Amino acid sequence: MHVDVHFTPLQTEELSFRDKTIVVIDVLRASTTIVTALFNGAREIIPVTTVERAVKISGRLFGDVVLLGGERNGKMVQGFNLGNSPAEYTEERVKGKAIVFSTTNGSQAIEKARYAQLLLVCAFINISAVAAALNDLNRDFIIVCSGRDGTFSIEDTVCAGLLLHLLQDKHGHELTFSDAAYAAFLLYKAHSKNILKMVKNSQHGKYLAEIGFAEDLKQCAQVDIMGIVPQLMGSVIRLKQDPEKNTVAQPIVHS
Amino acid sequence: MHVDVHFTPLQTEELSFRDKTIVVIDVLRASTTIVTALFNGAREIIPVTTVERAVKISGRLFGDVVLLGGERNGKMVQGFNLGNSPAEYTEERVKGKAIVFSTTNGSQAIEKARYAQLLLVCAFINISAVAAALNDLNRDFIIVCSGRDGTFSIEDTVCAGLLLHLLQDKHGHELTFSDAAYAAFLLYKAHSKNILKMVKNSQHGKYLAEIGFAEDLKQCAQVDIMGIVPQLMGSVIRLKQDPEKNTVAQPIVHS
Repeated sequence: MHVDVHFTPLQTEELSFRDKTIVVIDVLRASTTIVTALFNGAREIIPVTTVERAVKISGRLFGDVVLLGGERNGKMVQGFNLGNSPAEYTEERVKGKAIVFSTTNGSQAIEKARYAQLLLVCAFINISAVAAALNDLNRDFIIVCSGRDGTFSIEDTVCAGLLLHLLQDKHGHELTFSDAAYAAFLLYKAHSKNILKMVKNSQHGKYLAEIGFAEDLKQCAQVDIMGIVPQLMGSVIRLKQDPEKNTVAQPIVHS
Repeated sequence: MHVDVHFTPLQTEELSFRDKTIVVIDVLRASTTIVTALFNGAREIIPVTTVERAVKISGRLFGDVVLLGGERNGKMVQGFNLGNSPAEYTEERVKGKAIVFSTTNGSQAIEKARYAQLLLVCAFINISAVAAALNDLNRDFIIVCSGRDGTFSIEDTVCAGLLLHLLQDKHGHELTFSDAAYAAFLLYKAHSKNILKMVKNSQHGKYLAEIGFAEDLKQCAQVDIMGIVPQLMGSVIRLKQDPEKNTVAQPIVHS
């Protein structure tokens, strides 16, 4: 099983992801928020890259079942119903709803990888479920870290490294690594004992704490509290199973 | 002293390097070859991005003092005098010569950073000299790794990490790190005891060994065998001192 890691979505042309298995990671906070929303019963997430498009799409859908969520530079967009804090995506707010979702980095990564044969969304909070899904698939994959404004993020990279660690050391896969995957693996090993400290010390973590989201860092650094695997299906992100059963999702494969 | 590391030259617009102090690293092999050529008495290196431009420029200069050097995908370009193996750049071949130089990755990184206030060329073979120059400058800088075809290279990153280690632990600077600089620092620590093994196991190292350049890896992995600092001056790379004295170059600063 060969694994590559892209530290930002910028480095690759989107067509090169066609026919590939892609895992998108944006620990702070888009992938954590997407997992949380679906775990709490949101029907689907509709990822879009621009605020304008988010407003346009939500206008076409039925108002009572659609929410607008996301951020620009960490802050909620005027006119949106929800920001990008996972704490906002409670069962009370999101159950049964479709959420049009646009964030600075995570949505761009998903957009870039939208031609993938299979696209899974990964965060620390659902990482063992994603590892189990990849174990079942048993084929090459690429991890696309969202990074931050086109640059490297340590928290996404360490999350990627933990995913590789789980596949290799828990599921027993013999992985072959690109240089970037190898680096991610080593960077996870260097932080395995204190994920929260690493998240707090990251550039993005410090920024979020400054603008009032210190509590989000704790949520985003928790490992394995939601056993679900969000998957892009057409243009929306959904689950394949009942989240209340807390079982690993069986991703379907686009052919 | 704040430090950032770019894992590839792609992630940044060239104008954002204006007024910055930039260190360009391409361990395999452009920066190693540039250092070697200047150490062995080459008058200057003229970095250009395309083979066409290399041929055009060399045609305008006097034939007996100009050499064409470089590679595409590791291999010498037809009609060039030299490839990109540091072993070719002997005193006998290069002394007193200007070398028009074009490589797949390193020349692109130099081109991208050409508006820097100061651009230094760093490899393992001259790393303490570069650290000493940065120590004297005592100001923020950015390390631009050449990477490989727009992707991350472990050998450039570990070299960047060693440079940070020297500044912090030998020269006593209190560095503040971007996420990427912090990652480079950790990745150096993970490989500090065996640089050659890391270079041999890198994606690019394996490729070069496959196409017949295994010996180059040993040369490129040697630490501190040439105490010189190449610097971009206008459109050419030169030294500021006599390499035979083996003293640290004092870079001049463009104002």
